[in-house]
Amino acid sequence: MATQIPACVVLGGGGFMGINLCRRLYRSGHRVRAFGRNCHFPDALRGIEWRQGDFADPDAVAAAIAGFDIVFHLVHGAMPLAANLAMTTDVQRNFVPSITLLDLCGSLGVKRVVFASSGGTVYGIPQALPTPETAPTDPICAYGISKLAIEKYLTLYERLYALDFRILRIANPFGPFQIALKGQGFIAAATVRALAGQPIEIWGDGSVVRDFIYIDDVVDAFEAAIDDQGPHRVFNIGTGIGRNLRDIVASIEGQIETVVDIRWAPGRDIDIPQSVLAIDRAASELRWSPRTAFEAGLGLTIEWLRDNRAAIAERLR
Amino acid sequence: MATQIPACVVLGGGGFMGINLCRRLYRSGHRVRAFGRNCHFPDALRGIEWRQGDFADPDAVAAAIAGFDIVFHLVHGAMPLAANLAMTTDVQRNFVPSITLLDLCGSLGVKRVVFASSGGTVYGIPQALPTPETAPTDPICAYGISKLAIEKYLTLYERLYALDFRILRIANPFGPFQIALKGQGFIAAATVRALAGQPIEIWGDGSVVRDFIYIDDVVDAFEAAIDDQGPHRVFNIGTGIGRNLRDIVASIEGQIETVVDIRWAPGRDIDIPQSVLAIDRAASELRWSPRTAFEAGLGLTIEWLRDNRAAIAERLR
Repeated sequence: MATQIPACVVLGGGGFMGINLCRRLYRSGHRVRAFGRNCHFPDALRGIEWRQGDFADPDAVAAAIAGFDIVFHLVHGAMPLAANLAMTTDVQRNFVPSITLLDLCGSLGVKRVVFASSGGTVYGIPQALPTPETAPTDPICAYGISKLAIEKYLTLYERLYALDFRILRIANPFGPFQIALKGQGFIAAATVRALAGQPIEIWGDGSVVRDFIYIDDVVDAFEAAIDDQGPHRVFNIGTGIGRNLRDIVASIEGQIETVVDIRWAPGRDIDIPQSVLAIDRAASELRWSPRTAFEAGLGLTIEWLRDNRAAIAERLR
Repeated sequence: MATQIPACVVLGGGGFMGINLCRRLYRSGHRVRAFGRNCHFPDALRGIEWRQGDFADPDAVAAAIAGFDIVFHLVHGAMPLAANLAMTTDVQRNFVPSITLLDLCGSLGVKRVVFASSGGTVYGIPQALPTPETAPTDPICAYGISKLAIEKYLTLYERLYALDFRILRIANPFGPFQIALKGQGFIAAATVRALAGQPIEIWGDGSVVRDFIYIDDVVDAFEAAIDDQGPHRVFNIGTGIGRNLRDIVASIEGQIETVVDIRWAPGRDIDIPQSVLAIDRAASELRWSPRTAFEAGLGLTIEWLRDNRAAIAERLR
């Protein structure tokens, strides 16, 4: 008997990570459905079933996930800054529907939930760099608190209802289909502006360090999470290497062969100075590690942003 | 100039801990207001302003806290088991209003929020006993997740809006005015039934260990939290001593001089096997330690439960 390839539904399938994940799953032979409020690049989902709906609508979510084996939960409407400005709205639109989702997964027989958590925010200001999964989790933004609380509920639902899950605490992903629409994605934002000959805004002095990971490597980790049978539930997904924003800008300048004008803005309270993830657990348990050299990933990203300049400009307008 | 005694409002002031806290604050000369959905012992709040209202109603909460310096947040409608059975309801009635409360505290100029968290649930299954404040927080019930998420929001609000706070992670409190109405309070529940000659139900085999602390000692800690100026925000409040349920029943039997019939029921998923809090931080920073010997506290509790048998029976009906 042939092993059945699990059917996968991606909640938040119209976003940056979602599009990339759907495309890969489709290529790998899964039945794939993408669910979301909107998709900025409908052509990118060619061959993939797209279902428009609101994550805060339980009926829409139930209809979207019924009959699927694996639910990828990549929804998060409010980005870090916005979540801080509208905390109860964030709770209502992301946290509460996430608990409802778990109820639905249980009643609809979903085999596993794979949750995209945030390696850059759940730890807060790290005591150790690179930061392992066992480090204290003291988020300093509402976005991180929400991600962390959903993680805790996943653990609870496995305990109470045997709902299987994996959590990926993803560092700072970048790559094609990221268009910096909601203020996230430094590389996308900076590259778009650099290509347009516009100045880049940097909060703080540019010494902020992040663990930038190319999206294909993140997608590798999502795929590995589908059938992992190990004892762990939480995995950091990053590169283990920190890069500061000045270095990123220098790399962009090098690749597009131009000098970028930087506008310095005051540092933000929600920015932690350094975030770099320890990825030993994913390496040993998921047999996963990032394969894309930073400069190569940056090149592919710049290429995509350049090829799609017109479409992106329209969507950012 | 004399130091102003801070005005205190106790949210959840009609409950077990709330009544005890209000009475103490009143005796200590504070202006005190108790706010809650209902108070089972209105006479106990004589001389204290009682304001009936729903914690989930922002207008009621705003009106209740306006003009007060210290807000004690002791509200938590759903007890551990109930919270697990109605997770999104719990989030709507406790978690969301708690965030709204923090917004209100900021806009109304509250000087400090003192939050009653749960030392028995926020840690989950402890890796170390007694458990220090720095231990991992992996709750295995919705009640604990909710308490933990509120803790995280307090930290965030201090960072973003300079809202001052202290968190007390309280072990298993017992004493007068606890009537085991919502299934919490093993000592109250067991004593009431023992006094009535009824069997006691114990989930599991009675080996479950808890850190039972007499309510007056908890109230001491609340008072110490009013003007603590140290660097810490989170304090375990327990005795550091674990007692199993069999031993508790034996103590009750000894004090009321009767043999209790125990009905054994299956263990519950939400019960962690052992919970004992390390209290060194509160000892050194708050200069607080529990002063009541267990048997003495139990004696006072039995005395109160005996004196109020008729009233309690009516309220439990």
